[in-house]
Amino acid sequence: MADAVLFEFLHTEMVAELWAPDPDPGSGGKKKSLSVLEGLGFRVGQALGERLPRETLAFREEVDALRFLCKDLWAAMFQKHMDGLRTNHQGTYVLQDNSFPLLIAMGSGPQYLEEAPKFLAFTCGLLCGALHTLGFQSLVTASVASLPACNLQALEGHMCFRQGNEKTARVPGGGAVP
Amino acid sequence: MADAVLFEFLHTEMVAELWAPDPDPGSGGKKKSLSVLEGLGFRVGQALGERLPRETLAFREEVDALRFLCKDLWAAMFQKHMDGLRTNHQGTYVLQDNSFPLLIAMGSGPQYLEEAPKFLAFTCGLLCGALHTLGFQSLVTASVASLPACNLQALEGHMCFRQGNEKTARVPGGGAVP
Repeated sequence: MADAVLFEFLHTEMVAELWAPDPDPGSGGKKKSLSVLEGLGFRVGQALGERLPRETLAFREEVDALRFLCKDLWAAMFQKHMDGLRTNHQGTYVLQDNSFPLLIAMGSGPQYLEEAPKFLAFTCGLLCGALHTLGFQSLVTASVASLPACNLQALEGHMCFRQGNEKTARVPGGGAVP
Repeated sequence: MADAVLFEFLHTEMVAELWAPDPDPGSGGKKKSLSVLEGLGFRVGQALGERLPRETLAFREEVDALRFLCKDLWAAMFQKHMDGLRTNHQGTYVLQDNSFPLLIAMGSGPQYLEEAPKFLAFTCGLLCGALHTLGFQSLVTASVASLPACNLQALEGHMCFRQGNEKTARVPGGGAVP
């Protein structure tokens, strides 16, 4: 019995509890649920950030902070590293997880794609909160083209956060971060 | 950065989100919040129970299941064992944690005592759900006499669950479980 599954189960149940069904498409119910989950993630990300060793807080470049999140934060959360980090060198970063643990519990058929955002909102907020504690303002959005893979896109210099509607994140002229 | 704190931070924020302020004392708002947290814990406990190795599911006596929860489940959740397990040999068990991690973030003065139930409801539900998967119906309640210590009381043969109001759990004629 790994303690990692405890976080994953709690996350799943929290999403089920906080995800309001949307009887009226005009009511903004889904948007509200997403922002509640993002806000919750933001505060957890901030709290995690405040536990970091002091030298971690001295990243001068956002790319170094993102490298840290892709390795150390992902290892602490999911016992693995992010699969890729790309940037267009103009403040846009795409973090790529080919098998995002919080999406694995879902089915993998395309019919589940529209369910994905609620399982990504907490993590978008968390990355945003951790970056905030590290001194960087970034808009973090998520996109899924094929479950359970996902891309998380951090846009430097923008206020947190807004759930992406796009199906795939594109980084024009982008390259992998070494 | 330990992944254990991730669960604790998420729990804290979930409580903050789901704990409804109670403008009208007659509205049952607090009771409803507690039962939401308990229900969430129950489902997480069930899910954890279903991940257990098969031999674990063959406990014949509830006391063996409780011993397992005090050691293995507590170790997975909080990286430590429960401090004591007592029983009156009549189906009442008291699990004693002298420094319950989900209460440590609170202040330790007596003025915080009335805040404690909301930080215990999820865990009551979780124990109840895990016991349920192991084949035992138990009412699990919590009581706090002095923060951050708490007693969790499991009452065999009763339906889950109800938050205790008593300040200390008493086990008449009780003795420690070896």
